[in-house]
Amino acid sequence: MLTQEKQQRNWKPIIKEFEAVLGKNGVVQRREELITYECDGLTSYRQRPGVVVLPRTTEQVAQLVKICDRNSIPFIARGSGTGLSGGALPIEDSVLIVTSLMRQILSVDLENQRVIVQPGVINNWVTQTVSGAGFYYAPDPSSQIICSIGGNVAENSGGVHCLKYGVTTNHVLGLKIVTPDGSIVDIGGQIPEMPGYDLTGIFVGSEGTLGIATEITLRILKSAESICVLLADFTTVEAAAESVSDIISAGIIPGGMEMMDNISINAVEDVVATNCYPRDATAILLVEIDGLEVEVAANKQRVAEICLKNGARNITSASDLETRLKLWKGRKAAFAAAGHLSPDYYVQDGVIPRTQLPEVLQEIERLSQKFGYQIANVFHAGDGNLHPLILFDNSVEGALEKVEELGGEILKLCVKVGGSISGEHGIGADKKCYMPDMFSEIDLETMQWVRQVFNPQGLANPGKIFPTPRTCGEAASASKQQFEGVELF
Amino acid sequence: MLTQEKQQRNWKPIIKEFEAVLGKNGVVQRREELITYECDGLTSYRQRPGVVVLPRTTEQVAQLVKICDRNSIPFIARGSGTGLSGGALPIEDSVLIVTSLMRQILSVDLENQRVIVQPGVINNWVTQTVSGAGFYYAPDPSSQIICSIGGNVAENSGGVHCLKYGVTTNHVLGLKIVTPDGSIVDIGGQIPEMPGYDLTGIFVGSEGTLGIATEITLRILKSAESICVLLADFTTVEAAAESVSDIISAGIIPGGMEMMDNISINAVEDVVATNCYPRDATAILLVEIDGLEVEVAANKQRVAEICLKNGARNITSASDLETRLKLWKGRKAAFAAAGHLSPDYYVQDGVIPRTQLPEVLQEIERLSQKFGYQIANVFHAGDGNLHPLILFDNSVEGALEKVEELGGEILKLCVKVGGSISGEHGIGADKKCYMPDMFSEIDLETMQWVRQVFNPQGLANPGKIFPTPRTCGEAASASKQQFEGVELF
Repeated sequence: MLTQEKQQRNWKPIIKEFEAVLGKNGVVQRREELITYECDGLTSYRQRPGVVVLPRTTEQVAQLVKICDRNSIPFIARGSGTGLSGGALPIEDSVLIVTSLMRQILSVDLENQRVIVQPGVINNWVTQTVSGAGFYYAPDPSSQIICSIGGNVAENSGGVHCLKYGVTTNHVLGLKIVTPDGSIVDIGGQIPEMPGYDLTGIFVGSEGTLGIATEITLRILKSAESICVLLADFTTVEAAAESVSDIISAGIIPGGMEMMDNISINAVEDVVATNCYPRDATAILLVEIDGLEVEVAANKQRVAEICLKNGARNITSASDLETRLKLWKGRKAAFAAAGHLSPDYYVQDGVIPRTQLPEVLQEIERLSQKFGYQIANVFHAGDGNLHPLILFDNSVEGALEKVEELGGEILKLCVKVGGSISGEHGIGADKKCYMPDMFSEIDLETMQWVRQVFNPQGLANPGKIFPTPRTCGEAASASKQQFEGVELF
Repeated sequence: MLTQEKQQRNWKPIIKEFEAVLGKNGVVQRREELITYECDGLTSYRQRPGVVVLPRTTEQVAQLVKICDRNSIPFIARGSGTGLSGGALPIEDSVLIVTSLMRQILSVDLENQRVIVQPGVINNWVTQTVSGAGFYYAPDPSSQIICSIGGNVAENSGGVHCLKYGVTTNHVLGLKIVTPDGSIVDIGGQIPEMPGYDLTGIFVGSEGTLGIATEITLRILKSAESICVLLADFTTVEAAAESVSDIISAGIIPGGMEMMDNISINAVEDVVATNCYPRDATAILLVEIDGLEVEVAANKQRVAEICLKNGARNITSASDLETRLKLWKGRKAAFAAAGHLSPDYYVQDGVIPRTQLPEVLQEIERLSQKFGYQIANVFHAGDGNLHPLILFDNSVEGALEKVEELGGEILKLCVKVGGSISGEHGIGADKKCYMPDMFSEIDLETMQWVRQVFNPQGLANPGKIFPTPRTCGEAASASKQQFEGVELF
C-alpha cells in the first residue's frame, strides 16, 4: 500500500490560542502525555490526537470550539474514556476536548427531583449525592464508578436497571450544549413538558456529532421501599430464557433481570469468589424486584414459582443490602473476570427480541465453534440486550480480524431476528459499517440531514456513527480502511 | 386596513393530478364541503383550505406530497381535527391531507407488545383491539374516543394516565413517514434500542412540520392486575395541592391524579350527574392506583392517610370497573360540561412545578377577577399540567380578544414559576407567540435548523410552532396579525 507523507498541522499558533483560554495547564501537547488519550474503552483502535484541552466551564468549551471552527480543526469530546464503541477515538491532527475537569454538581433540587451536573461528573456520584435523602439516579452502566455523565449522554448508556427505568435518554430533562460553531444553546429544560422539537432526545445518543453537552439536567428517582434479589440456577439455557419470557408475560417488570452462562459463572467465581454462583449451572438468572414491601414479597413469590416451573434447581434470595451486593458482585465483575480467562476479550453489544433468546444463544454457540473462539455470555436478559464476550489472544497474528468478523456475524444475527446492532454502547467508530444492515440508504441520509445542519463543517467527531463510503464492505476488515490515519493494534 | 385582491391559485390542473392518484372520490373541492375542514378543535381561528385530499396508503400520501412539492403548494395534515392549538389549521390556498380513510390496524404482535397502525386509527381502538388479551395503550387524551393516533403523534398528546406512563413519545417505537419532498422514510423501528439519531423522538410532537406519519408502531402495556380509584374532597385548594405533593414525595406514582375545582364539580354534576362529586367541596382529587392487588391495597391506604392528614373531609374508593368508570365520568366530561356553563369556553394548557400549585391557583383566581371572566380549573395535578377553562360569550364584541389575553397571562405565569406554555396540546397556531417567553432566540433558531433541513421549501404546515416575525408582540392580539389570510371568528 502506498502511503503519502502528509503535511502535519502547525499547532503552535493554535496552542497559543488554547492557552489564552485555559492557561498553560489546560493544554496537553507533549507526545508522551498524549498517549493516554489515543483510545477509549475500545482499545483495538488507536490514534493520537494533535492536542488535548481541559476546559472547566461552558464558556471555555465555547471558546475552544470557536477556535477549532475558525481553523477548520476536527474536535472530539471525551469524558472518562470508558466507551466501548470508539466514540471518543481521536482522528489524526484533531483536538480532544476532555471534560475531566468539569466535575461540579451545579444544583440539587430534591423537591422537583432534578440535579444539574457538569459533563465530567462520574455516574455514581449523582446517586451518592442524593441517596441520603432517599433518591437515586437510575441508569447504571457496569462502568458507573468511573464513567462520566457526559459520556453517558453521548452514548445513551444503559445498565442493569434500564429494563424497568429506561436508558439515559429517559432521565435527561435538558442540556446546555455548545454547538459545532461554538454557540451556547439550551435545549429541553427543567421539566419534562417542553414545547417545540425534542432536541434533547436527538442530542442524547448522538455521540458528540452534534456538539458538546456542558450542563446536564438529570431526573432523579425516589429509592424503592424494598428491594429483593433472586438468583435462580438452571441446567439448560432454554429453561432460563423461558423463565425470562414468562416473568415479563406475567406483567412483572423487574428492576433488573440478568443472565450469565457457565463460562461467565466460573470466570467470576475464579476471580471474585462470591461463593453464590453454582459452578455447575448452565445458566443463572439474577432478578431484582423493587417496590413496596408487600409488592416485592408478592412478586418474589411469583418469580420463584415461574423459575421453578421452568426447571430451576435452586433459588436463593436476599433482601438485605450486604447479601444483595454479594449476589450482584459477580455480575458486575463479569467483564473484568473475562480478562482472566484469556489475554484479551472483545465485548459485543446487540439486541434481540426476548422471545428469540434460546435460538440466538444456540447460533452464537455454533459461531463460537466455527470460528474457534470461546464466547462467554453475560447479558441484560429482560430487554434482550446481549453482551457476548469473545475470548482471544491479540498477540496471535490475525486473531483480532477473525474476532471482529465473528462479532460482526453476531450483530448480523441480531438484525436478522428483528433486533439491533447496539443496545447501550453506541455505534462510534466500531459499528458504523453495520448501520446499512439496519437502515436503508434513505433512512441513513435522513439522519444525516440533522448532522449536516448542526455540524456543517463536519468538525464535531468526524467518522463516527455513519458509514463512509456508504458501500463499505461486508467484512469487518473493510471497515478499517475508513479510518484514515488510524492504526489498528 | 388595506386589503389587496390576491390572485387565487388555479386549482384545476392540480386537482386533476390529485384525482389521478386518488380517484374523484378522494378529492374534496366544493366550497360547502370544505367548510368542515376550516378549523380543528381551536374554533376561534378559521381558514378554508383550497382543496382536501383523502389518501388511503403511504404511497398515495407520498404522491400527493410530491405534487405539492413540485407546485410549491403548502400542505397540512389533519387527523380527526380535535387538536386544541390549531395545529391542523389550514392556510389560504393550501392542501389539507386528511387521514380519516387511513384507519387500518396493520399488525398486532402481542408477544413483543407492539401494534402497527395507520394514522387515522382512533386512539381507543388500539386498546379495544388488545384488551381481550390483557393489554392496553397508555396515552389517553380526553378526546380518545374520537382523536386519531396520527394527531396524537403530531401533538405528542398526553392524558390522565401519563403521570405514571408518559406521553405519546414514550409509546411510539417507530414511524414510516413521508418527508416534505415526498420521500418515504422509516425512522425508529420495532424495538426501543435503535442506533443512530432518535428521529422518532424529534418527529413526535413536531405538529406536521417535518412530514406526515403514515404507519405508526406503538408500544402496548400489560393491563394491571388491580386498579382502584379514590375520590377525596377538600374544603381548600391548598389542602388538595398539599396532598398531591405529599403523595409524590412518599414515592407513590399513581396511574393518574386529577384535581377539579368547585366550578367544575358543579358543572359536571349539572350535566352528567355522577352523584359522586360533593357540590360543596372546594376541590376534589381523583387518584387512580394500579398494580398488584397487594400493592394497590397498600398504596390505597397510604394515599387515604395522606389526604386525611391534609384535611380531606371524605374519601370514597372503588375497585370494581363500574364504580371506577362512574368516578371518572365527571372528569372525562369536564370540558363538555363547561360548555353548559357559558356559551363559549377557552381551554388553556400550561405546566407548573407541582410545588407551586397553591400559589398559581391563587394567581389564576386573581386574574379571573381582574379580567372579569370565570375560570373553571380541571387538571392533571400529579404532573402540574393545568387546564384552566375560561368561560365567556363569543357573541360579545371583543370578548375573545380579552379571553386570549387572559389565557396569555396564565401562560406567562406558568413560565415565570419555572413551567411550560404547553403540557399536551401542542403549540400549533395558537401559542407560537409565547415561544420566546420560554426560549432564547438562539434556542429557537437551533430548533428551526431541523425544520429547515426537513422542510426547506417550508410547505409542510407553515406558520405553526415558531413565531414569525420573531418580535411578535406581547399581547395575544398581535399574534393574529401573523396569520395571513386567517379570519378571526
